[in-house]
Amino acid sequence: MVTQLPAGEFEGRLERVRDRLAETDADAGVWFGATSIEYLVGFDHIQTERPVVLAVTDDRIEITVPRLEVERVSANPRIDAVHHYDDYPGGRPIRTAVDMLEGLDVDRVASDGEGAPGTMGYQGPPLTEFVDVETQGWVSRLRWEKSDAEIDLIRESAKWANLAHRYLADYTEPGAHPATASQRASTDASRAMLDALGDRYVARTRGSGPVSAGYITGEQTRLPHGHTANRRLEEGDVLVTGATANVDGYHSELERTMFVGEPSDEQAHYFELMCEAQDIAIEALGPDVPIAAVDRAVRNYFEEQGVADLSQHHVGHNIGLAGHEPPYIDQGWGDHCESDDTSYDADDAMMRPGHVWTIEPGIYTETYGYRHSDTIAVTEDGIEWLTYYPRDLESNIISVE
Amino acid sequence: MVTQLPAGEFEGRLERVRDRLAETDADAGVWFGATSIEYLVGFDHIQTERPVVLAVTDDRIEITVPRLEVERVSANPRIDAVHHYDDYPGGRPIRTAVDMLEGLDVDRVASDGEGAPGTMGYQGPPLTEFVDVETQGWVSRLRWEKSDAEIDLIRESAKWANLAHRYLADYTEPGAHPATASQRASTDASRAMLDALGDRYVARTRGSGPVSAGYITGEQTRLPHGHTANRRLEEGDVLVTGATANVDGYHSELERTMFVGEPSDEQAHYFELMCEAQDIAIEALGPDVPIAAVDRAVRNYFEEQGVADLSQHHVGHNIGLAGHEPPYIDQGWGDHCESDDTSYDADDAMMRPGHVWTIEPGIYTETYGYRHSDTIAVTEDGIEWLTYYPRDLESNIISVE
Repeated sequence: MVTQLPAGEFEGRLERVRDRLAETDADAGVWFGATSIEYLVGFDHIQTERPVVLAVTDDRIEITVPRLEVERVSANPRIDAVHHYDDYPGGRPIRTAVDMLEGLDVDRVASDGEGAPGTMGYQGPPLTEFVDVETQGWVSRLRWEKSDAEIDLIRESAKWANLAHRYLADYTEPGAHPATASQRASTDASRAMLDALGDRYVARTRGSGPVSAGYITGEQTRLPHGHTANRRLEEGDVLVTGATANVDGYHSELERTMFVGEPSDEQAHYFELMCEAQDIAIEALGPDVPIAAVDRAVRNYFEEQGVADLSQHHVGHNIGLAGHEPPYIDQGWGDHCESDDTSYDADDAMMRPGHVWTIEPGIYTETYGYRHSDTIAVTEDGIEWLTYYPRDLESNIISVE
Repeated sequence: MVTQLPAGEFEGRLERVRDRLAETDADAGVWFGATSIEYLVGFDHIQTERPVVLAVTDDRIEITVPRLEVERVSANPRIDAVHHYDDYPGGRPIRTAVDMLEGLDVDRVASDGEGAPGTMGYQGPPLTEFVDVETQGWVSRLRWEKSDAEIDLIRESAKWANLAHRYLADYTEPGAHPATASQRASTDASRAMLDALGDRYVARTRGSGPVSAGYITGEQTRLPHGHTANRRLEEGDVLVTGATANVDGYHSELERTMFVGEPSDEQAHYFELMCEAQDIAIEALGPDVPIAAVDRAVRNYFEEQGVADLSQHHVGHNIGLAGHEPPYIDQGWGDHCESDDTSYDADDAMMRPGHVWTIEPGIYTETYGYRHSDTIAVTEDGIEWLTYYPRDLESNIISVE
């Protein structure tokens, strides 16, 4: 059972960015992004108005943090030195980072931005005022191909998401409140995960549990980004659900379209169309498949069926440390990779082993929305389903007796 | 009872940015930031890899959105025209926005960024490739001074946070799991808020409830950004709690240091020091007070008491649409406002009526952390407490009988 990223993963990641660094004129790779910093050295923090700056040279790893992160980062075995400032803005975060870079004899950096992002109203001088900066997106790109260990964590996440989703179905009945059914399922699945994993559980949440499940209902389902309405469930309701669990920072995505009581013929029709579109996308997946082709296959099917205008978004995205990360299954993805606007090349337009995709083509009528989402890894010779909640209509009808 | 922002608020906000626009050479104000767009026109959306672009000219308001937001934004009464692209990247979001600007006869914009932010791996051309761009932070700055209606919503939020915190205390006992007590309190307070507000409730969450409460325990409390450990509560545990509720997008912050059973003399000592520091900060608050002076007053007290090295962060932040927003109560805030690194001026170094502050000086020993946080508005002639859960030691001891 893998519930924590093995320490050896970080060595490989650091080696890869050092290889990239060696190809540049820069003396250090620099990162401001919290997820990139976590990916490289395993120090996770909340990105706030207080910048955190990681510097990686060919033989040193140093970091600048606000005072309140010193204890958390000091325990990290990969970081050679921790510099800190008092707080923002009085502590002068960028000056502290510049002092760190001077101590490392760094004149030129390859950085994930020209300065710290403006999160929560942060304002400060760009790094370009102090050192030469070229920008790079190395870590974002490295994250596309997951290792076996990363996929293990996403597989573990899918297990707890599945439990939460089962609870969600169990707690759903006419008269129940969607928010309460959702929160109860999250609570009970979180507790089961915590008790099952015991000291193998890596604490990642604050004042909450690691598993969440929930849904939107009724006419909100016709909005891909709808909200949970303040209205109790009734027979005839359509639900679009979602469930995930945080396993050492990694996520999966499980979504289902469900019905409270028997669906109408029209509802069953759109449900089956949606399922067929998902099947088509999944059959198209695999190593060395053009990413855009998967989206195109689904669009072609929707056009054949005369429902192209009921589609509102592309087929899916990758998932891992972030719930939503590139590459995206979009018809424009291949062109995108050959455009001047991105740092991708034509090779990046293909599916590769280690990609972990959500497959979630949706149909949105004037009354309801229909969407399943499954999390599926591309392997050397095919695919692996990571989520496994039943997808068929019968399994997604809540009996009202 | 105010539970929804009155529509009239948007008129005033739009008038203020149009006044600012008139002072520039630009033909339109442009925003990419989700919170700024929500603030100006009341269209709230999740910031993803799909850019949303709002344009405000002296007589028109138009917006570019991905296909999946068309239905949600079309209902907005303030937006004159909605443009959409299919999806990212194939839909070419920035080209769609540029077409929108051309249709508005706009050659020069005052924008909140040179292009869409790189959220969730978005990459695309900056707006500067197509039109002249000057950057502005108008909305971020406008948000500092809340209107009476905004403070009404934060006051309403504090009520539900207070209920959640009471439930949290009720569910806390030796043997309880921190995650479960936290999630039960969130569930029950959410349900109470939903049932109490009925159709006055504005849906703002997805698959969850509007109220959250929770805590970190034991040695995690010595880390201001600690996590909820997988360990049941025991007599002698120290808790640092947090509770908030989402009322039409607005938030409050309530945090308490609590004890499971009687605290030790050392724990009681640090608790009282922390409370006294919070009193000192609150006494210092008011209109036309230098922001930095409030932090300095607390730091002076900590120095007198010989605990300056146990402080890890400044006294507080503002709160509203974001849980954490500027200005910050930091000793450097006054200098910051007169520096070249920011768009603030010396006037911005003072507290003003309409600021809503969290007041949360903390003490962090080698074993535990001690911090309350209260949400307090600055008024024309003083302050108003918005949170009101009891702060004294006796009220924050969980009896173990």
